[in-house]
Amino acid sequence: MKVLTAFNYDSNSLKNKMQQTFRLIIDCPDQLGLVANVSQFLAEHQATIVEASHHTDQQTGRFFMRHEINADSVNLSMESFASAFRQVASQFDMQWKLTDSHQKRKVALLASKESHCLNDLLHRWHSGEMYCDIPCIIANHPQMQEYADWYNIPFHWIDFASQDKQAAFEQILELLEKYEVDVTVLARFMQILPDWLCHKLAGQALNIHHSFLPSFAGAKPYQQAYDRGVKLIGATCHYVTQDLDEGPIIEQQVIRISHSDTAADLVRKGKDCEKTALANGLRYHLEDRVIIHQHKTVVFA
Amino acid sequence: MKVLTAFNYDSNSLKNKMQQTFRLIIDCPDQLGLVANVSQFLAEHQATIVEASHHTDQQTGRFFMRHEINADSVNLSMESFASAFRQVASQFDMQWKLTDSHQKRKVALLASKESHCLNDLLHRWHSGEMYCDIPCIIANHPQMQEYADWYNIPFHWIDFASQDKQAAFEQILELLEKYEVDVTVLARFMQILPDWLCHKLAGQALNIHHSFLPSFAGAKPYQQAYDRGVKLIGATCHYVTQDLDEGPIIEQQVIRISHSDTAADLVRKGKDCEKTALANGLRYHLEDRVIIHQHKTVVFA
Amino acid sequence: MKVLTAFNYDSNSLKNKMQQTFRLIIDCPDQLGLVANVSQFLAEHQATIVEASHHTDQQTGRFFMRHEINADSVNLSMESFASAFRQVASQFDMQWKLTDSHQKRKVALLASKESHCLNDLLHRWHSGEMYCDIPCIIANHPQMQEYADWYNIPFHWIDFASQDKQAAFEQILELLEKYEVDVTVLARFMQILPDWLCHKLAGQALNIHHSFLPSFAGAKPYQQAYDRGVKLIGATCHYVTQDLDEGPIIEQQVIRISHSDTAADLVRKGKDCEKTALANGLRYHLEDRVIIHQHKTVVFA
Amino acid sequence: MKVLTAFNYDSNSLKNKMQQTFRLIIDCPDQLGLVANVSQFLAEHQATIVEASHHTDQQTGRFFMRHEINADSVNLSMESFASAFRQVASQFDMQWKLTDSHQKRKVALLASKESHCLNDLLHRWHSGEMYCDIPCIIANHPQMQEYADWYNIPFHWIDFASQDKQAAFEQILELLEKYEVDVTVLARFMQILPDWLCHKLAGQALNIHHSFLPSFAGAKPYQQAYDRGVKLIGATCHYVTQDLDEGPIIEQQVIRISHSDTAADLVRKGKDCEKTALANGLRYHLEDRVIIHQHKTVVFA
Repeated sequence: MKVLTAFNYDSNSLKNKMQQTFRLIIDCPDQLGLVANVSQFLAEHQATIVEASHHTDQQTGRFFMRHEINADSVNLSMESFASAFRQVASQFDMQWKLTDSHQKRKVALLASKESHCLNDLLHRWHSGEMYCDIPCIIANHPQMQEYADWYNIPFHWIDFASQDKQAAFEQILELLEKYEVDVTVLARFMQILPDWLCHKLAGQALNIHHSFLPSFAGAKPYQQAYDRGVKLIGATCHYVTQDLDEGPIIEQQVIRISHSDTAADLVRKGKDCEKTALANGLRYHLEDRVIIHQHKTVVFA
Repeated sequence: MKVLTAFNYDSNSLKNKMQQTFRLIIDCPDQLGLVANVSQFLAEHQATIVEASHHTDQQTGRFFMRHEINADSVNLSMESFASAFRQVASQFDMQWKLTDSHQKRKVALLASKESHCLNDLLHRWHSGEMYCDIPCIIANHPQMQEYADWYNIPFHWIDFASQDKQAAFEQILELLEKYEVDVTVLARFMQILPDWLCHKLAGQALNIHHSFLPSFAGAKPYQQAYDRGVKLIGATCHYVTQDLDEGPIIEQQVIRISHSDTAADLVRKGKDCEKTALANGLRYHLEDRVIIHQHKTVVFA
Repeated sequence: MKVLTAFNYDSNSLKNKMQQTFRLIIDCPDQLGLVANVSQFLAEHQATIVEASHHTDQQTGRFFMRHEINADSVNLSMESFASAFRQVASQFDMQWKLTDSHQKRKVALLASKESHCLNDLLHRWHSGEMYCDIPCIIANHPQMQEYADWYNIPFHWIDFASQDKQAAFEQILELLEKYEVDVTVLARFMQILPDWLCHKLAGQALNIHHSFLPSFAGAKPYQQAYDRGVKLIGATCHYVTQDLDEGPIIEQQVIRISHSDTAADLVRKGKDCEKTALANGLRYHLEDRVIIHQHKTVVFA
Repeated sequence: MKVLTAFNYDSNSLKNKMQQTFRLIIDCPDQLGLVANVSQFLAEHQATIVEASHHTDQQTGRFFMRHEINADSVNLSMESFASAFRQVASQFDMQWKLTDSHQKRKVALLASKESHCLNDLLHRWHSGEMYCDIPCIIANHPQMQEYADWYNIPFHWIDFASQDKQAAFEQILELLEKYEVDVTVLARFMQILPDWLCHKLAGQALNIHHSFLPSFAGAKPYQQAYDRGVKLIGATCHYVTQDLDEGPIIEQQVIRISHSDTAADLVRKGKDCEKTALANGLRYHLEDRVIIHQHKTVVFA
């Protein structure tokens, strides 16, 4: 009888295993010589390209590029490298950023009473699959405290029942600022963010909607799906915007159902879609794979 | 070198290969003793059950049952068998039907200029995969004549440009009646049926909509999907009703897309969904696997 | 701004919400009058059928039936009901069982160092989605203790390094007996069960194999898949038998990959398949939806 | 009542609609400055990049790149452009090719008695979805003649029964040479190619295997799948090599099945996988999206 061995990524030392890369994300008007100049710049600095993705939106003439570069290969610090790139960037009128794969983002999780997405993300984080820090969990109900406690993460219950929503959301913003949060994830947070907060968190807040948008926007999507008699249900991870359920879509998942599934079965089956769509969407975001272009996304998955 | 052998169903003699069955479809209020009585009836007539499916709609208290019975096992003709069943049926206030799997339905195909669904259905029929007769193809454009000619099926071009729609649709109805059509399939027929014709064909006309309904109902669904930036597109096979794109859904298919797909790519990828959804939906219908219940379907797939 | 409300099944009081049912599972030679007699028996005892599924294996002539009956509708205790059924059962030479949906099975989880399946099952159990008791977690490594502690479940580390395997597996069997375990789940347990233990647990032990069996049986399936260059990977939930990776398959899941995925990416993507396949398989088993027939399964999903 | 309008690609004038592009495919050792040099070359010749894809195989250090360039943007003929590129290519030890999207490849279809893949490819070609010429259909049985006749394509029946296989395959090779065939597609051709012919057609012959390889290689895969009791079946499009069913995989498709599906149902359901996998695989090949690397493929889909 022999012992099976397996890959094992259950470790908080993921960083040590992960090759350090710099990620250069570019968004600019499509122009001749663009790729050549960027590539020339990278070659001049000895940058080994681990992954490269391009996309041109033919309708808008906008160009998007993502490079993942072996950090060790570059003969400069990230700061100096960024400084040096500024000239290329300005020449081509780029919106751009350079990020370090070893630099953990701070991700705040917002929840209500449903635990499936929360638990899923926490486990992926804890097991080293999702590379980030989770400085706090904020909820409008107290039940999720147990998950926060297990994972030893500060939990903040913002009581929406005993105060007006404006005050409640101001408290949330305070917490996000206090913890210097980079990304806010609405992991089945069942309160609609006010416009001012959507604006504040633009491009940095992800939601999971429990339907295959644009079908069944709004409340009780599983009941809507049941009532309509669709044969597949789904979930949608999108950026939060002022227009409820209309934000740029990052990822969607679907699952087959039948007449024999009750509305409660849809809820159960849909949860697996929600978990996967949100986890994929967040991972793409954390790895700088998503570029928002107007009300859509480019996802270099 | 050895010769591979394979299953081969490319034959018009499918009927000879297909075991003859009677299909007993029941739709009635759920009641105690229902299944016992039906089963007792079947046993009394020596009926061997090939396939049995039940469903109770818990909300409406409606019961649905489909039996597929080996015809050779029954000691009566189908007519006598049906007569005998009438007593059970009336006792339980059933809507019911008994059909013969060897009795081919007459399926009319309605088309416009797109050939993919038409060709797909014609091939499935010709190769013996889809068990039915196709007495005619009707179109509002002349291009599909070549497909009709190849398969030696009468082709009728109803010119919608040179007459008003009412007259055009009356011509279509005349043809459906002349050919004694049982099932009308809108295989990417790009004209909206008038209410009176929807009513006439109720429960016997299937449409394929090129979106994952209820998303992107109406015109140009692929363009709508492209503009919204969804990450999956689909197709929906549903019964035709007066409420456009709102009929009971039989089958849906989806396919993954990305930012790099143009609207034309969506059209191309979506075609495979359309073909499969329509072919599955039609097969379910022809095999008496679909029961319409209010605005939804029970599909004993 | 309005509050969204949603279905919420995060509760340990699932039992109270779940309608109590009796499940009657029958496996016998196909015979005339079988369904009539069972249905007659049910009707005589006023049994309301919530769900009914039939299957006849045409090759072996074996018949399988599962009824889920509203417990409240029956005018007898489950014991008396079972007693009464014995006569029908013996008349038709049935293998059968009658179970109570409110009777929780005791499920032991066996693990090694990978936490994803373990955490997934624990959360589904804790949130009330998976209806069972989990009396113990047994592992051949100590790392999973933290999960056991969080969920307040006894954890037993059986050290395979410091003793021979025979002794180690005897310890495991002792624990299974001590906790009166009904179902043993190998949630990425990386030790191969000896024949005597497979025999002992026949039909009551589920494994998750991290490949789309029969592809890539044996060790390191993700590396095998990477080396072969397949375009989809998967996971398989099956019953444990003496023939490694050859047991009856209950459920399989797949996910698309590409040339750009490393072997480590396959591991990460495959985990989602493993979790879903194992959770589905276990739920089917706990709900008495799986009947083993020779080396295959009938799954009334 | 309004007329729906839709995208319509049913046209043989697809070429006129298709933007002409040059495709530059590169396969070489990964080296610093590679992308910069290629991009610099493209910029110097005013080449507008429509699509660009890169991949580095980390294990072998091999680099793969595909550029699709707007032909109109280039200030040289394709020949001069290729000549000019030769210097860059030699500097980096590249295997490379430059192709013209408007240059139709000649695709020979090999068939036996099954028509589904054949009909599917012919329709995609005829409707303008698959951009190629089909100069001939070759079969070891006469039945497919009707499809060839419909589409007005020369049909050659090579009788394998009345001669030895060596002679039969020599006839096939003669035909491939006579028609100056670029790509040979085994569209359910049920004869195993001899080694010498595999060698001759290396990298230019595609097969569709009716299983999810490496599961169920060899004969009667659907029967094998049925006997094993898998819960998903599939199809695999791969390059033909001397090692039967072991060639580099281009594309795979799967579909869910259940215990209630007979072996004949698997055949029917599997056909849809076969058609899609083969059509996708062939399209990728014709668009120069596939690079063979050892016994695997890079597919820039």
